[in-house]
Amino acid sequence: MNQVSEIHDDVQLNVKDEQQMQDAQDPLRDLRELFVLPDGVIYLDGNSLGALPKATADIVAKVVSVQWGQGLIKSWNDAGWIEMPHRVGDKIASLIGARQGEIICADSTSVNLFKVLHAALMLAKQSPHDAQKRIVLSERENFPTDLYIAQSLCKQHGFELKLVDAHQLQAELANGDRIAVLMLTHVHYRSGAVHDMLLLTKAAHAVGALTVWDLAHSAGALPVDLHASNVDFAVGCGYKYLNGGPGAPAFAWAHPRHANVMEQPLNGWMGHAAPFVFTPEYVPAEGSHRLLCGTPPIISMAALECGVDTLLAAKPLGGIHALRKKSLALSNLFIELVDKTCAGFGLSLLSPREDLKRGSQVSYTFESIDGYAVMQALIARGVIGDFRAGYKSVDGVMASPDILRFGFAPLYIRFVDVHRAVNHLREVLEGKEWKQSRFKNRSIVT
Amino acid sequence: MNQVSEIHDDVQLNVKDEQQMQDAQDPLRDLRELFVLPDGVIYLDGNSLGALPKATADIVAKVVSVQWGQGLIKSWNDAGWIEMPHRVGDKIASLIGARQGEIICADSTSVNLFKVLHAALMLAKQSPHDAQKRIVLSERENFPTDLYIAQSLCKQHGFELKLVDAHQLQAELANGDRIAVLMLTHVHYRSGAVHDMLLLTKAAHAVGALTVWDLAHSAGALPVDLHASNVDFAVGCGYKYLNGGPGAPAFAWAHPRHANVMEQPLNGWMGHAAPFVFTPEYVPAEGSHRLLCGTPPIISMAALECGVDTLLAAKPLGGIHALRKKSLALSNLFIELVDKTCAGFGLSLLSPREDLKRGSQVSYTFESIDGYAVMQALIARGVIGDFRAGYKSVDGVMASPDILRFGFAPLYIRFVDVHRAVNHLREVLEGKEWKQSRFKNRSIVT
Repeated sequence: MNQVSEIHDDVQLNVKDEQQMQDAQDPLRDLRELFVLPDGVIYLDGNSLGALPKATADIVAKVVSVQWGQGLIKSWNDAGWIEMPHRVGDKIASLIGARQGEIICADSTSVNLFKVLHAALMLAKQSPHDAQKRIVLSERENFPTDLYIAQSLCKQHGFELKLVDAHQLQAELANGDRIAVLMLTHVHYRSGAVHDMLLLTKAAHAVGALTVWDLAHSAGALPVDLHASNVDFAVGCGYKYLNGGPGAPAFAWAHPRHANVMEQPLNGWMGHAAPFVFTPEYVPAEGSHRLLCGTPPIISMAALECGVDTLLAAKPLGGIHALRKKSLALSNLFIELVDKTCAGFGLSLLSPREDLKRGSQVSYTFESIDGYAVMQALIARGVIGDFRAGYKSVDGVMASPDILRFGFAPLYIRFVDVHRAVNHLREVLEGKEWKQSRFKNRSIVT
Repeated sequence: MNQVSEIHDDVQLNVKDEQQMQDAQDPLRDLRELFVLPDGVIYLDGNSLGALPKATADIVAKVVSVQWGQGLIKSWNDAGWIEMPHRVGDKIASLIGARQGEIICADSTSVNLFKVLHAALMLAKQSPHDAQKRIVLSERENFPTDLYIAQSLCKQHGFELKLVDAHQLQAELANGDRIAVLMLTHVHYRSGAVHDMLLLTKAAHAVGALTVWDLAHSAGALPVDLHASNVDFAVGCGYKYLNGGPGAPAFAWAHPRHANVMEQPLNGWMGHAAPFVFTPEYVPAEGSHRLLCGTPPIISMAALECGVDTLLAAKPLGGIHALRKKSLALSNLFIELVDKTCAGFGLSLLSPREDLKRGSQVSYTFESIDGYAVMQALIARGVIGDFRAGYKSVDGVMASPDILRFGFAPLYIRFVDVHRAVNHLREVLEGKEWKQSRFKNRSIVT
């Protein structure tokens, strides 16, 4: 949004001085300058695909034209490509309470989940006196791809996937003698609800179960401390709050107590103890390095490294704790303004109101409006959030409603953006703008 | 190499008019102009990492700056990211005798091999009267990462991985009642030897075994016809002859007779029948689409698409058949010139002399020289091939020698390059240049 249209909009939309002040006083305000943000867009979908850091284009161009084009095969050593899965992993480590050398970066979140959940199941099977431990416990509304991976592994290895509502998890664990693994996504992709990682991990350990945490909506959005929470395995996503670009490689972590004994089934040359010796027998590398499999996509990984570096630029300003504080302030402001100005349109807050229980996004269910069309009308105004269709489970136990979802990436979202976004939402609702037929044609939504 | 130094070198190195003529008459000669090739470099390692197409930098820059930077989340639809695994797969199809809609492009070769080999093992298990079929047959010197994946799956699912020398495969298959799957790499990564895909697939089918072919060193280098060979499953690599860039996504294929019934274990949202409905139950997509798992690395995939498009530019000039013809002419010339000018230095041709049996690379074993240092001396002169260390299997059955390996990517290698490369090799050997200590320090070699 250029200066003139911003001033115009603020007059039209009645942006308060208060938010201008909040931005002026925001210690993280200059970090926004590190991002490319399209004119006229308020981007509240960084929880799905993070924005482009300004530095990324040049770095990717260098990898393509200089490292690949000129260095060719030599760049595996000379440009440090071979070290990238570990180097990028080490950069992510500080954000989630892991230590140097413990994280690898490669493959997709789904593939990495397959590796660590398999490792956890095998550990459970090897454990003495635990022949009865054959349940993987998860949340009924966990991210579907996580459930698909768990279904596949459970079927293969004789485990049962038990799904319960979030509020039932603790009770299940308390009577969880048969539970081998607790597998959860830390921040819920729809509601933004945060699980208590420390508490649930402790409860799982108390009944001899291992824990696998998916940090897709956590890494880079809120502080995570894998060691302090005594987690067993974790995976996470590179293209959301880490701003790694579309389909950026994901990451995987195993607690050191498991890393040297775990068996992950995707045995590839990069996870071998001596990858360049090319022996015909697989010998797993030390520790988490064995979580690597094949050759990772270097160009996409270079973009991810740049995204993580951009996030780490917040470090002198308070780092992930400062980002979390701002993210909560942004989402609280959004909730407060929607409460105040959009009442009467049937929106209901799905996300927890309590700070400790909410991630970096805010979701609403709704009645009497077409939520899809409302989001399309907002997008037409430059306010990009997303619409998530509800679904029913086959057994009918779960019916999940349609939602409107807004993410607040604290690196580049301002308080004035929040105010403007809510004003646009109010105008779309009040003016029944969403009733225009152009907003109702559903195509593929990601 | 600029014009002046080329003329100088040709005088110095006695390049024959003959090769200049061959290049002038080469119908594919202009395709070289589609690539970035560093000055002073003769790149004979395109079998390991293909060269950079000139078009790639702009396309990648557009994906980063326009599609990601400006289009943000909307580019999943607007820029067609969501279709890329299928679109790029369709482009690869014509090179390997697959049909539209049959190939997906995503993940690494190792991960894709895991998917299709698992699918093959499960089909074998489901087959009636085949309870005794519990052997996966492969070549002792198959690419190690393929063996690692097979070891892992065999261990998990109660199969035995039986490794034999290449020349024993047919005899093994003839008595192969217990063989469930024949898993081979079509072109050997060290020797360049080509298996007879049609013959071996037929022999496997004759004993009720399925076939899994790895096309890593075939796709884009020589004609493959998966349907005509009646193959069951195939995977391949994007960063060798497809010029997709470091760690480019790989591809996977299943014959239509298996595609709708196969079970691959990496069940992720992109392989779901309705990926955007997000139901908690996994329902595999139609056909090969179920070979997808998580979100693929879009920036790396865009580079791969450009690499494949560059290869497809050969189509009006005879396509893969013309490329194969040139590749054989190049490697035959190399063999002929080494025979003629490098005799007496202990080099022995490891690759088959017979055209039908040789892929697009030429390898030598050696005596009385330090092969590593020879390759380093060549690289210092701008001739980039690679050195591959030998290895022993733990059971001592296999002892594989050190080799020097030279690849001839027909899209950008000229006949004069071959002549110059051999002249450099001769000079390095004659002048004992490789004895200089600077060429003997081994670091990581990829």
